[in-house]
Amino acid sequence: MKLSLRIILLLSFAFSCLSVQAGDEVDLAVMTQIREEGFKNSQVMETVSYLSDVIGPRLTGSPALKQANIWTKETLEKWGLVNGRLEGFDFGPGWTADHVSVFMTAPRNVQLSALPISWHPGTNGVLHGAIYYAPMDENGDFRKYKGKLAGKIVFVDKLEGYQAPSNEVMIRRTEKDLIKSKNYRIPNGEQEEDFDWWVEYITFHHELESFLAEEGALAMVRQSTRDAMLIEASGYKHIDGQLPKIPGVVLAAEHYRRAVRLLRRDMDVELSIDVDAEFYTQDLKSYSTLADIEGALPNPNIVMVGAHLDSWVGGDGAADNAAGVAVVMEAVRILKAINVTPHHTIRVALWGGEEQGYFGSQQYATNHLTERPKNTNEDLRFMGPYELYYNQFPMITKPDYDQFSVYFNLDNGSGKIRGIYSEGNLAAGAIFKDWLVPFHDIGAATVTMNITGGTDHEVFDHIGLPAFQFIQDPLDYESRVHHTQVDTLDHIAEGDLKQAAVVLAGFIYNAAMQEEKMPRKPLPVATPE
Amino acid sequence: MKLSLRIILLLSFAFSCLSVQAGDEVDLAVMTQIREEGFKNSQVMETVSYLSDVIGPRLTGSPALKQANIWTKETLEKWGLVNGRLEGFDFGPGWTADHVSVFMTAPRNVQLSALPISWHPGTNGVLHGAIYYAPMDENGDFRKYKGKLAGKIVFVDKLEGYQAPSNEVMIRRTEKDLIKSKNYRIPNGEQEEDFDWWVEYITFHHELESFLAEEGALAMVRQSTRDAMLIEASGYKHIDGQLPKIPGVVLAAEHYRRAVRLLRRDMDVELSIDVDAEFYTQDLKSYSTLADIEGALPNPNIVMVGAHLDSWVGGDGAADNAAGVAVVMEAVRILKAINVTPHHTIRVALWGGEEQGYFGSQQYATNHLTERPKNTNEDLRFMGPYELYYNQFPMITKPDYDQFSVYFNLDNGSGKIRGIYSEGNLAAGAIFKDWLVPFHDIGAATVTMNITGGTDHEVFDHIGLPAFQFIQDPLDYESRVHHTQVDTLDHIAEGDLKQAAVVLAGFIYNAAMQEEKMPRKPLPVATPE
Repeated sequence: MKLSLRIILLLSFAFSCLSVQAGDEVDLAVMTQIREEGFKNSQVMETVSYLSDVIGPRLTGSPALKQANIWTKETLEKWGLVNGRLEGFDFGPGWTADHVSVFMTAPRNVQLSALPISWHPGTNGVLHGAIYYAPMDENGDFRKYKGKLAGKIVFVDKLEGYQAPSNEVMIRRTEKDLIKSKNYRIPNGEQEEDFDWWVEYITFHHELESFLAEEGALAMVRQSTRDAMLIEASGYKHIDGQLPKIPGVVLAAEHYRRAVRLLRRDMDVELSIDVDAEFYTQDLKSYSTLADIEGALPNPNIVMVGAHLDSWVGGDGAADNAAGVAVVMEAVRILKAINVTPHHTIRVALWGGEEQGYFGSQQYATNHLTERPKNTNEDLRFMGPYELYYNQFPMITKPDYDQFSVYFNLDNGSGKIRGIYSEGNLAAGAIFKDWLVPFHDIGAATVTMNITGGTDHEVFDHIGLPAFQFIQDPLDYESRVHHTQVDTLDHIAEGDLKQAAVVLAGFIYNAAMQEEKMPRKPLPVATPE
Repeated sequence: MKLSLRIILLLSFAFSCLSVQAGDEVDLAVMTQIREEGFKNSQVMETVSYLSDVIGPRLTGSPALKQANIWTKETLEKWGLVNGRLEGFDFGPGWTADHVSVFMTAPRNVQLSALPISWHPGTNGVLHGAIYYAPMDENGDFRKYKGKLAGKIVFVDKLEGYQAPSNEVMIRRTEKDLIKSKNYRIPNGEQEEDFDWWVEYITFHHELESFLAEEGALAMVRQSTRDAMLIEASGYKHIDGQLPKIPGVVLAAEHYRRAVRLLRRDMDVELSIDVDAEFYTQDLKSYSTLADIEGALPNPNIVMVGAHLDSWVGGDGAADNAAGVAVVMEAVRILKAINVTPHHTIRVALWGGEEQGYFGSQQYATNHLTERPKNTNEDLRFMGPYELYYNQFPMITKPDYDQFSVYFNLDNGSGKIRGIYSEGNLAAGAIFKDWLVPFHDIGAATVTMNITGGTDHEVFDHIGLPAFQFIQDPLDYESRVHHTQVDTLDHIAEGDLKQAAVVLAGFIYNAAMQEEKMPRKPLPVATPE
């Protein structure tokens, strides 16, 4: 899941007006087969284990993502899917860091917990210098520190003081939460705010990195946004030719804060930093994996199901998002295993570049669904294709646009499916209500009209196509796992993944058997200025 | 706080029979002065900051503990205490580790989070080898792996599987908890069980280390007992001449488990380990800091107050136990600042060697309070003086034993004082009930007859002297901080420390003004075999 200002999870008015009889159009015999296969012969843990334990973190552009592209393609083909392929998108250099060592060398020697920030250069050996505390969170702050940072290791985040830790670590949604989630939150510009926040966030960090490099700073040091040794190790979306020029690391919050406190005692505080980073420039494209179960009808619609395959690098990208990938792969494995013949084509998409802003899914939309002019606004100079095509008109549709039925996405950790966000689409919501009936007894029953953001379905929703994410149990995803070192297999809940794969397989099957395409919302039009 | 099988915090029958009028003998004018000084001119954060941020971890025998001994002595003298002194005890070599790097080098390269285990030797450069999974938890397990470990990096802990994290992270005791804590738990041999567990624990770990060294293992690797990157970095009590012979590190649980999972896929899993460790053999003694406020009476009793100054090395020993030391120091600073003239001598003791088994406090008892024969049982060959004197008779008392009134200890993190454990002493409990009256409005009101263990007051209690620990709010001490890397100033609650210092100052003042010594429990006698 991409970093987001506000991950909209809470959602208004339950649509109690729906009167479609539950289960009417659902083939319960097939749903039973799906449950049996998914619960008794599950491969989902092997898939998530292979991706996270064996392959490990899969930063967009890195060799590991490519390895995962190939392994997922081959695995899907082994299970009987066809047209396995990698679909590339322009991205820029890959990056890995093999080694990071950070020490406070004065006033006393302490080894610090740190992670390198993606796409920052290595140190070329051990770099050593005095620290300078220069908290900056808007470019107006640059003038305060101009001329003061040359030769310094610059601590750029404002010192956060003591905060009592939260007791909401492991969360399962209660019935009360789920009922509350059905209250529709009338749109109030949140999506536009989120978009603007993201652009400002990315732009400021590019400017900050440039400012530090111009000032001759030795390195940039950030404070982890989490405490108790958890480090969020995401980087910033990068544009080829705009890569950071000085090393950058994130310190464990406790270690960042101690260094600043010692500095405030007028002590000389010095750090040594040693980062081995490697850039990969042989292939400046990165890839998504696609494969199909072809529909039996002569002119089938397309039912898509996807999850992003890329990850950040602090952990193994297990919950974000090997879990989603494994559930998606398991859902289609189940359908192949029980040997269904869908009317419509089921297309699996395992995206690259999600964490940096939906590069893979946007490329798919650009290749197959819509043609739009690119925004040339200078404010977007650091942004990727999703932002450049955002709200740009005219929007010309391509042939697949008409054949497109629905897209389902998984990207909220390894918690089980409790329901689905219908993104304001009443007709789709009514259908989902029926589809959930065979899964009420495994916890999946809630349909909310609310929207949710922060991942690849937004690309499809934004161009007027039905695209949905599921409501999942959060577990410890938000509290500890998301983008940190502990996004590893240990934090994956096996029973939850099996449940999610079964529910998803049911949804995919139902979508692939629908007579009509999934009902759509009105076609997006240019917002009046 | 020493590691303990069971830290007895819950405690039975409230002694509602007491009818002493609250506040009768407490000088409320002095208590008001104490509150004013402690709340308005507090130095407690500066003390805890200096010990944890500036001096850092204070392993028994290390130069940093010595530095802390001197700094605390000088600070107490600066505040007007007299007879500042260091009291030594035989301990053995000091140890520090400046650097630890652990990488999984196969099947893929990943930097691991690790802490070296205290008193294990360094690696003399980078050590590299295949891992071997040999879970052992009793010495009967040794024969399973005999002949198989030569040249291997041995993973000695049993793989723990997924466990949902607890939502009890930050705990404040509720009124209900406190009422429940008053239910007296009739002794059922727990103290003896704790003692036996501790002896077995220490002995097994010595034997395990010897076994690995004899087998020619390259290094020992342990699994952290916590998850989410928290590492408990305690070592095992060491006896001079019995130091571990091969390097030993604890890995973050996620990293330990991943390595074992990869091994179970029949992959070759290799590690490189680089630990710089240094031993200090110039002074094989370590020290406690003592200082007094002399009593005005011609033949004053002794009121003692203490906390252990030593710590483990993963963090800065802030909550365990710079917090306790700072509260104790602040309490006597308050008494000096308000210029009281106590009838009896107030003696501050900041112990060394607590974490390895009460070395400093036991030495004090041996020097000044009792003479006992040492247990020569071979089962205790790895144990320190506390265990060797435990339940040994005859017990001959020394002159200070008669002058001794009471000992108060602080060692449960930085949470505020909610009451006191009376260790089964009804008469003392009745007195404490009165003494708490002026502090009810700041949360300290509970007297339980229950016992609590795991720290230095046990030395005094064990020889029949009144010695007590307070009931404190746990905060995140047990959940995250105790013996981990995050035992740093960030997890210290300032308001709580101020409260604790005020309550403790009140108790010390009252004890130092008592006409009689604190009532004692019956003198311990030899347990019939």
